[in-house]
Amino acid sequence: MTVPTGPTGDVRAVTIADVAALAGVSVPTVSKVLNGRADVAPTTRARVEAILEEHSYRRRRARTSTDPSLIDLVFHELDNAWAQEVIKGVEDAASARRVGVVLSELGGSHRPQQDLIDDVLARRPLGVLLVLSSLDATQRHQLESRSIPFVVVDTWGEPPAGVPTVGSNNWNGGLIATRHLLSLGHRRIGVIAGPADVLCSRARVDGYRSGLEEAGIRPDPALVRWGDFHVLGGYTHGIDLLSRPDRPTAIFAGSDYQSLGVMRAARELGLSIPEDLSVVGYDDLPLAQWLGPSLTTVRQPLREMAATATQMLLSLAAGERPANLRIDLATELVVRESTAPHRAG
Amino acid sequence: MTVPTGPTGDVRAVTIADVAALAGVSVPTVSKVLNGRADVAPTTRARVEAILEEHSYRRRRARTSTDPSLIDLVFHELDNAWAQEVIKGVEDAASARRVGVVLSELGGSHRPQQDLIDDVLARRPLGVLLVLSSLDATQRHQLESRSIPFVVVDTWGEPPAGVPTVGSNNWNGGLIATRHLLSLGHRRIGVIAGPADVLCSRARVDGYRSGLEEAGIRPDPALVRWGDFHVLGGYTHGIDLLSRPDRPTAIFAGSDYQSLGVMRAARELGLSIPEDLSVVGYDDLPLAQWLGPSLTTVRQPLREMAATATQMLLSLAAGERPANLRIDLATELVVRESTAPHRAG
Repeated sequence: MTVPTGPTGDVRAVTIADVAALAGVSVPTVSKVLNGRADVAPTTRARVEAILEEHSYRRRRARTSTDPSLIDLVFHELDNAWAQEVIKGVEDAASARRVGVVLSELGGSHRPQQDLIDDVLARRPLGVLLVLSSLDATQRHQLESRSIPFVVVDTWGEPPAGVPTVGSNNWNGGLIATRHLLSLGHRRIGVIAGPADVLCSRARVDGYRSGLEEAGIRPDPALVRWGDFHVLGGYTHGIDLLSRPDRPTAIFAGSDYQSLGVMRAARELGLSIPEDLSVVGYDDLPLAQWLGPSLTTVRQPLREMAATATQMLLSLAAGERPANLRIDLATELVVRESTAPHRAG
Repeated sequence: MTVPTGPTGDVRAVTIADVAALAGVSVPTVSKVLNGRADVAPTTRARVEAILEEHSYRRRRARTSTDPSLIDLVFHELDNAWAQEVIKGVEDAASARRVGVVLSELGGSHRPQQDLIDDVLARRPLGVLLVLSSLDATQRHQLESRSIPFVVVDTWGEPPAGVPTVGSNNWNGGLIATRHLLSLGHRRIGVIAGPADVLCSRARVDGYRSGLEEAGIRPDPALVRWGDFHVLGGYTHGIDLLSRPDRPTAIFAGSDYQSLGVMRAARELGLSIPEDLSVVGYDDLPLAQWLGPSLTTVRQPLREMAATATQMLLSLAAGERPANLRIDLATELVVRESTAPHRAG
């Protein structure tokens, strides 16, 4: 069987019946595969998926008024207040449109298991939001063939061309944090970033390096650490950095949580903040202003990022074509008590 | 028309056709009402709901294998890390059963709006989890008539008989926090509770009073404050309590967030923790161990409470009848750096 053509010989979109014929299975079987049902043999399923992909099948969305309106919100992990801000932004934007939000977590992995994808296919949501996680080519095609759009919030890796993303200007965040510390007279400035394989984390470190370089300071590789965005990463690297004979007088801690860890490390080593050590966080979680001392930090507008991504997703689901599919919101410095001028000594 | 009877004269369950006949509408109209559809005139809808309620109509759940498996998780508000712990507990328990979690927030209100109930009816979830929120009698009946079970996590008011709940032993939590401070020699102990209309908050204050009374101390009403569970409540009442000439030497702060506010108030007034003031929190959020000083607090097992409620809900949805529909999990004291012996003087 060849690619079907219409009466005038033009290539026409493949139908579910075409796919069934090409795969040598029944139409209901193709339907089951499209709906993520478990009761299809794996080999049959793989054959059907291959044909869907080969012929760029796109299911027409024939939503009825009784279909519940849902979006899926998929986190790589749910373990901190950062996630809470994203949830709140998505929830507010979705509920304003009477759209329900189905929450999932990948247990720290950056890619969904097939089970989750199957559940999503079965739910037939309006779309999927992926937070610090992404899809492989097969999974992307599985959503595309079911006409389920997706948007990535804060990419962890390089998203392929055409994948819509919403993030914030991480490079600029690293730059303004570092410039602030330089303006206070600090010269030995450490950085504890997030994981090295997370794009936003690398962008912040590059902003830090640019800040140092424009001040004529060569970055010292010993002061650049890759953490985990959690308190423990800040604590472990904090103890290590602050125990050095040539310890930094300031640390850009990469996240508010890592700042908490650095603050504890400083306390344990008998260093006062900001007198002996300046600390700059990243995120500006609601907590940051209440810490003792309150935290100077780079504000990334997490709720706005989440709301923007939700609106973009719902536009795509409505068949609109948003003008801009890659949006980075601005970051800004919020100065509080945890940074102070360098004391010569 | 009278209540329908079966061939033998027994009262039989009313059917959707009976309801339609009694309401003088068509069967599809009753169906629309059952599914929370908007396209029914409000008066018609009210008439149908009244008949559903009067005849204790129960929809039979004829779930097909293509129905997505969802539960609804409804928060009164999503603004803090406390909610995050509950979400994590629900998400883990639900995803282990391949059940999706739809998240909603009531914007600080303790009762859902009808819009949300309609969305729930349209989604036909396996059940509904309500966190610090509850349903009025009409809303309860709306879920019951659709055979959608619900469970309340941490009740804010007195739940009616028969409403399943999962909470923790709040009275005991207040008692052990107070006993700990008494054992350190404190006699003037303040308490900043949550809102006075939240049941768990009143239980904690009663535990505090019992603790004082068993030590032969008459509770001073001036030292009992009703807060909001947020940082600001702790801060405002903290400033007020600690500015008194007869200020307390210890404060049971009612939540970890309120403890953060008390700690800031103490810093602003030049009081050191624990030297000048002991502080006990409530919740034991992951954050508590990282604060400076780390927080002595009452641990309530939020993730376990959430998981227990989810399992109870899924049992009810499966038609099982759990042996116990009111479960309170144990609270325990976690001693860290924020409490110390009272200094005479």
